[in-house]
Amino acid sequence: MISKYTIGLDFGTLSARAVLVRCSDGYIAAESAFEYPHAVMDHTLAATGEVLPPDFALQDPQDYYDALCTTVPAVIRESGVDPEDIIGIGVDFTCCTMLPVDSDDRPLCFDEKYSKNPHSYVKLWKHHAAQPYADRINELAEKRGEKWLPDYGNRISSEWLFPKIMEVLDRAPEIYEAADSMIEAGDWITRLLTGRRVKAYVYATAKAMYDYYGGYPKKDFFAALDPRLENVVEEKLNAEMVFSGRSAGNICPEMAKKLGLSEKTVVAAPSPDAHVATVALNMNRSGDMCAILGTSACFMLLSDSYAPVQGISGVHKDSLTPGFYGYEAGLCCFGDHFAWVAENVATAEYIKEAEERGISVLRLLIEKASVKKPGEIGLIALNWWNGNRSVLVDSALSGMILGMDLRTKPEDIMRAIIEANAFGTRLIAETYEEGGVPVKRLVAAGGIPRKDPFTMQLFADVLKKEITIASASQIPAVASAVYAAAAAGIELSVAMENMGKVSETVYRPNPEAGAVYDKIYAEYRRLYDHFGRGGNNVMKTLKAIREEV
Amino acid sequence: MISKYTIGLDFGTLSARAVLVRCSDGYIAAESAFEYPHAVMDHTLAATGEVLPPDFALQDPQDYYDALCTTVPAVIRESGVDPEDIIGIGVDFTCCTMLPVDSDDRPLCFDEKYSKNPHSYVKLWKHHAAQPYADRINELAEKRGEKWLPDYGNRISSEWLFPKIMEVLDRAPEIYEAADSMIEAGDWITRLLTGRRVKAYVYATAKAMYDYYGGYPKKDFFAALDPRLENVVEEKLNAEMVFSGRSAGNICPEMAKKLGLSEKTVVAAPSPDAHVATVALNMNRSGDMCAILGTSACFMLLSDSYAPVQGISGVHKDSLTPGFYGYEAGLCCFGDHFAWVAENVATAEYIKEAEERGISVLRLLIEKASVKKPGEIGLIALNWWNGNRSVLVDSALSGMILGMDLRTKPEDIMRAIIEANAFGTRLIAETYEEGGVPVKRLVAAGGIPRKDPFTMQLFADVLKKEITIASASQIPAVASAVYAAAAAGIELSVAMENMGKVSETVYRPNPEAGAVYDKIYAEYRRLYDHFGRGGNNVMKTLKAIREEV
Repeated sequence: MISKYTIGLDFGTLSARAVLVRCSDGYIAAESAFEYPHAVMDHTLAATGEVLPPDFALQDPQDYYDALCTTVPAVIRESGVDPEDIIGIGVDFTCCTMLPVDSDDRPLCFDEKYSKNPHSYVKLWKHHAAQPYADRINELAEKRGEKWLPDYGNRISSEWLFPKIMEVLDRAPEIYEAADSMIEAGDWITRLLTGRRVKAYVYATAKAMYDYYGGYPKKDFFAALDPRLENVVEEKLNAEMVFSGRSAGNICPEMAKKLGLSEKTVVAAPSPDAHVATVALNMNRSGDMCAILGTSACFMLLSDSYAPVQGISGVHKDSLTPGFYGYEAGLCCFGDHFAWVAENVATAEYIKEAEERGISVLRLLIEKASVKKPGEIGLIALNWWNGNRSVLVDSALSGMILGMDLRTKPEDIMRAIIEANAFGTRLIAETYEEGGVPVKRLVAAGGIPRKDPFTMQLFADVLKKEITIASASQIPAVASAVYAAAAAGIELSVAMENMGKVSETVYRPNPEAGAVYDKIYAEYRRLYDHFGRGGNNVMKTLKAIREEV
Repeated sequence: MISKYTIGLDFGTLSARAVLVRCSDGYIAAESAFEYPHAVMDHTLAATGEVLPPDFALQDPQDYYDALCTTVPAVIRESGVDPEDIIGIGVDFTCCTMLPVDSDDRPLCFDEKYSKNPHSYVKLWKHHAAQPYADRINELAEKRGEKWLPDYGNRISSEWLFPKIMEVLDRAPEIYEAADSMIEAGDWITRLLTGRRVKAYVYATAKAMYDYYGGYPKKDFFAALDPRLENVVEEKLNAEMVFSGRSAGNICPEMAKKLGLSEKTVVAAPSPDAHVATVALNMNRSGDMCAILGTSACFMLLSDSYAPVQGISGVHKDSLTPGFYGYEAGLCCFGDHFAWVAENVATAEYIKEAEERGISVLRLLIEKASVKKPGEIGLIALNWWNGNRSVLVDSALSGMILGMDLRTKPEDIMRAIIEANAFGTRLIAETYEEGGVPVKRLVAAGGIPRKDPFTMQLFADVLKKEITIASASQIPAVASAVYAAAAAGIELSVAMENMGKVSETVYRPNPEAGAVYDKIYAEYRRLYDHFGRGGNNVMKTLKAIREEV
C-alpha cells in the first residue's frame, strides 16, 4: 500500500512552519520553518520609516507568501515524498489577522498607490488600536440586547474583525473604499492556493460575530454603528463560506507548479491557530477538554449540547472539532505569572545558584517550590495579574498574595501563584459543570505541560482529574494536516485517530494532596467572589487612582 | 562656673555603652562601648558546653560587671573630667532581663553549686522558653477578669518576669529555692552600684503586672497559678521601690573606688532601655508622641489623662516621662518588612546594579520607589508579616499585597510596604485620638528616621502631621544621664530641656500627596477590618492548614 501524506502550514506571530505528515500514522516526514523578515511592525512602517501610532501591530503579507513558497518546497524536498502522494494541504493562521485586498485578492499594500498608508497592511491579531471601535460595538450591542453577545462572553475585543474594519473606515476611508474585501490572512493564503474567493466559517464565528444559525449581525446594527457600514457584509465580506475539515477547492495550477505539488492536491478550509488543537489531539467526545497552557491559558471543551455557561469566552457550533459545540474559556495570564515571579521575586543567593547551575531562576524556584507539602507555604493568591477572562470577564482586576510572614521565600510565592492558576482552572471546570457542560477528560498541551511535571501533578491534585499530556510540539501544524486529509477525502474521525497525538504521560490525582487543596480552594473561592464580584472593589479603585495621578 | 556631668549607661542585647554628658547643654564629653564576651547563649551554655533547649536566650552577668568596670573608667579617662564634677550615674537595661541572686545580691550562677544549671543564669528579654507559663497567666487572668489585664493590651508575653520565674520554679525548683531575689538585670547593676536592695518601679509596671495604684496581682491569683507561688512577691521580689528620675542612693565606697568616681555620686533609679526615649528627647507635654522606628516600631505617647484605648499595648502612670500616663502601641514588624522585600523581591538586574554602585538592594529599591508618585504603583499592602500588635493584638495575622499586574516591579512592592507601615501608624494615631488621647507632636527616632528621608516624608504625608527627627544616636544612654542629673538634684524638666536632643530636621506634610493617600488609606482601613476583625479569617485558616501538614 502506498502511503498518502498531507501538508499542514501553521502561520504564527513571528514565523510560519510546515509539516509533511503521513496520513496512516501521523509520522512527521519533514518540517520546515520560516521567520518573517519584517516580523511585527509596531514602531515604524518598513516601507516609509514612518513612526506608527501606539498599539499598532502590522505585518507585510509578502512575508506570508515567502513563507509559503519556502517551506512547502522544503518539506517535499527534505522528505523525498512523491508530490503525487501529497493529497492535501491545510493552513492555520493567527486570528483575527486581517488585510484589505483588491478584486483580484491582491493586498492593497502591494499597490504603490497605497503602500505608504499603514492601513493598507495586515493588522496583526495583537494590533490594539481599534479599541474605541470595540467599545462602541460592545456598547451598542449591549444596549440593543444583541442575541450574539452572550455567546461571546458579553464582550468582543479590539482584536476582532469589525473593530479593525471600522478603524480602517474611520482613519483611512480611501483604503476602505479601495478594498474589495477585508479578509483574514488565513483566508488570503487559501485564496492564493485555490484561486477561489472562499472564507472560513470558523474565522467568522470566532472573531466576526457570525452565528451558525443567524449569520452576521443585521444591517440595522451596522447602520447604527456607522451609516457607511450598513452593507459592510455584502460589500466587504462577500465570499463562499467553507467549513473546517472540508475542501476549499483544488490547488490552482500556478501555485501547484510554484510549490511543486500535484494539481490534484486538495486545499482545506483554513482555521485559527488557537482553535485547532482538539483535532490534532483526537478529541472527539462530548466532555473532552483541551487545556493549552502557555503564556496564557485556553480551555476548550467539546459538548453535544448548547448551554449558556456564565462567564465563559464563547460557545459556537463546529468551532473546535466539527460536530460539537465548542466552548472556550481562559486565563489571560498563565505562564506570564510564573515569569513575573521569576523576574521579580528572587534572592541574590538564588540568582547566583541558578547561574552556577546553568538553569533559569524560574526552574530553580519551581524546583524549590516542589519540595514543599500542600498547605505548607501558608499563602494564597488571586491569579489576576492581567485581569480575569473567565469567569469574571473583568480586565480591571489585579493580582493578590496573602499570608506572607518573615519566613516566606520566593519559592513559596512561586508555589502560591502556580496553585492559584490551578484553582482558577478548577473554578472554570466547575463553572462548565455547573452550567450543564461536564468536563470528562482533560488533555493538556503547550510548553508547560511538556516541561513541568510539578505543575501538572499539582493541577491533577487540585482539579481531582487525570490529566493526559499532549507530547506533539507542532500541534497547530499537525491539525492543519489532519484537516487537509479530511478535505482530501479521508473521514475526519479516521484522520484524527491516525494522525492525532496524545502521549502516554498521565498525571493522576493524589487524594491526600487534594484534601488539603480543597480547604485552600474554599478560601480561594471566597476571595475570588469578594474581590471579583463587588464585595470589595479595591482593585478598581487603585486603578482609578493610578489613572488620575 | 564649673560644669557638672553625669554618666548614662545603656545595657543592650550584645553590648553596653557609657556616655559622659555635660548637664548644662547635653554635650557628650566621652563615649565607650563594651561587647559582651559571652554574647547571647542560645545554643550552648558556655560553662558546660551543654546544648540548650529551643527558645533559650541566656547571658552571663559577669559580662555586665565587666562592661560597667570598663566603660565608666574609660569615659572618665577619655574626657579628662574631674570625678568630683560627675554628680550622678544612671542605668538602663533591656527588660525583662532577669536573674536569680542570693541574699548578698550575688548571681546564683557565680556559685559553683549552681553554675552548671542554665536556670541560674540571666534569662535575656528574648528568652522565649517560658511561653507555656505566659499562656497560663493569660488564661487565668482572663478567666478571673483581672483588672490589670486591659492595661497590658489584654495579654502578657513570654518575655515577662512572672513567666520566667515560673519557668525556674517548674524546671529548676532548687534554683528557685536558693534564690533570695529574682531581679531585673538593671536592678542588679543598681544594687551593685549602691549596695542597696532597690527595685525600679518602671520595670515592675512594664513587665511585672505592677500597677501604680494596686501593686502586684494578689496572693490568690498567684496561688491559683501554683500554690508554691502564693507568696512570691514577699519571698522573691522584696525590695524598696524606686521611681524614675529619683535617687536609688549614693554610690557605695567600694564601687566608687573601683570605677574612679567620687563617693558623692548619686545613682539614679534604673529604666528599661525601650522606655527612656521620651526623656532623652525632652518630651514633656501631654500629646507628645515618640516613634521609635527600627526593626519593629514603638509609639509612646504622653498624656495627662488615663483613657482605656482599644488595642494598644499598655498604659501606665509614670512609665515614660514621669508625671504623665505613658501609652504604648507598636508595629511588631517595621524595618523587618523593608528587609524582607530587599532580601526576597528583586530582579537580577537590580542586584547587579546595587553591587556595581556599592549600595544595598534595600537602598536601591527605596531610591527607585521614591521617584514614583503617590497612587502610581496601584498597590496596597497589609503590613502584618509578623502579625499585628496594635490595634488588633493578633499574632496570627499575616501579610497581604494586592493590585499587582505584569508591570509591577520590586520597587513598587517596596513602596507599597512602606505605605502600609505609614497607614498602620496613622491608624494607631487615630485610635489614640478616637480613644480620647490626642497626638499633638510627633518625634521620630531610630535608624530609619535618621537615614531615610523618603520614608519620613511619606509618613508626614500619610499622617498629615509634622515629624521632627531625633538626631541623637545614643538616646537610651543619654536618657540615663538625664535621669542621673535629676537624681543628683537638678530639676528633671531642666535636665531634659538642657540635655534632650531633637534635631532641626522637620518633615512637613504635602497636602496634595495627602489627598491621594487619603483615598488609599480608606481602602487600607477596609481591608484592615475585613481581614483583621473577622470578615474573612483566611489568614488564620492558612496558618491552621500549615500547622496540620
